[in-house]
Amino acid sequence: MTGETKSCWNVDVLTLYPEMFPGSLGQALAGKALAKGLWSLQTTQIRDFALDKHRSVDDTPSGGGPGMVLRADVVASALESVIKKNDARPRLYMSPRGKPLTQQKVHELKNAGGAIILCGRFEGVDQRVIDASDFEEVSVGDYILSGGELAAMMLMDAAIRLLPGVMGKKSSGEDESFESGLLEYPHYTRPSEWNGLTIPEILTSGHHQKIKDWRLEQSLSLTKQRRPDLFENYQLQSTRK
Amino acid sequence: MTGETKSCWNVDVLTLYPEMFPGSLGQALAGKALAKGLWSLQTTQIRDFALDKHRSVDDTPSGGGPGMVLRADVVASALESVIKKNDARPRLYMSPRGKPLTQQKVHELKNAGGAIILCGRFEGVDQRVIDASDFEEVSVGDYILSGGELAAMMLMDAAIRLLPGVMGKKSSGEDESFESGLLEYPHYTRPSEWNGLTIPEILTSGHHQKIKDWRLEQSLSLTKQRRPDLFENYQLQSTRK
Repeated sequence: MTGETKSCWNVDVLTLYPEMFPGSLGQALAGKALAKGLWSLQTTQIRDFALDKHRSVDDTPSGGGPGMVLRADVVASALESVIKKNDARPRLYMSPRGKPLTQQKVHELKNAGGAIILCGRFEGVDQRVIDASDFEEVSVGDYILSGGELAAMMLMDAAIRLLPGVMGKKSSGEDESFESGLLEYPHYTRPSEWNGLTIPEILTSGHHQKIKDWRLEQSLSLTKQRRPDLFENYQLQSTRK
Repeated sequence: MTGETKSCWNVDVLTLYPEMFPGSLGQALAGKALAKGLWSLQTTQIRDFALDKHRSVDDTPSGGGPGMVLRADVVASALESVIKKNDARPRLYMSPRGKPLTQQKVHELKNAGGAIILCGRFEGVDQRVIDASDFEEVSVGDYILSGGELAAMMLMDAAIRLLPGVMGKKSSGEDESFESGLLEYPHYTRPSEWNGLTIPEILTSGHHQKIKDWRLEQSLSLTKQRRPDLFENYQLQSTRK
């Protein structure tokens, strides 16, 4: 009876803009998976948990400064309302101050059965509720967004595509950037000549081992050039193996 | 006559899912700015530039492997269709193989008057068109999405909030994470006591210099702990000053 519910990757989003969801996650790959019931989403309007008649959710920062801060009590009430019995889903707060999201973390989240995601707006959220409610701060990158909603969608999109039954072939995805610790090699397809440019000869040679070697070489050189940080990690891990 | 057009941050998105746009960018801060004409967006359906009656845009990767690759000729035609006279807008291809997006890069894009953004799907795009058409590969983070659309929206959101007239107070934003090279200090707001937890005393002291010092200290310690990479850069830059 509960099998279907259990196997479905389930997300609760706490936001001031529930109408933003599912947004583009309702289309293409994620949208098809949503229609198939492979994942599900509920949004909760944080404003519904305001305590005064003006429905205020924020107040000025203690100590001064521009912007507004989301109140701890309001956020805590919104969170309480979505926690299920024995709810082990990670609680994530999308924040540029968080730990950078990685593909490894995406796999962990995919395996966690879902998530509760808090989307901030304004200057941020009162630190007390982040600490007291065990929110894990997650950053999608070193830039500032107008709110956490797009970051939440991106995190969800990254996890959803890994859910069983979502991607066509199981093998699609294993060669991707980051899965091996390296950036992906360049791709080519027909036409074999375009605009005077040809496809590297090796790729049309039919020699599988040479193609594999060439692709690894390309991945290594691209990673070294563009992402010395990843390249260094890759070398460290190769040494350990 | 053309003043308004010139001052408007203008984006062309090349995508297989034009219906995803403006998506959540049509709401909240970015949505209000869109309604005010502070930025504008056109989407181009890549499929409209397919060459055969099946409207194929992709083909199998040369050299084998899973997935499909977007054809160079189709992408090049779609790009041609959106290039204006004297179009100096950067051409961005959202790709995990790209240079990681930073807040500094967002400022550059904001100042570039707009962008042409190519969103990939499937395994990627034929490398020849990336090279020949001067697409700059930009990555929003070290994880894999089902397509470039959400990444494009995020990049746009980050730039839009910086456009003149979008954020309420000019000062809002300057204290944010990354603008100073450090993560932002924690925020607190009323109530002064919540759930037995109080606001750090210094913040309610009214002593502006002490508050400033405390916040810098918090930023430094948080950055050191969570993002040793940023902390190291910050120290290097401080030494140079």
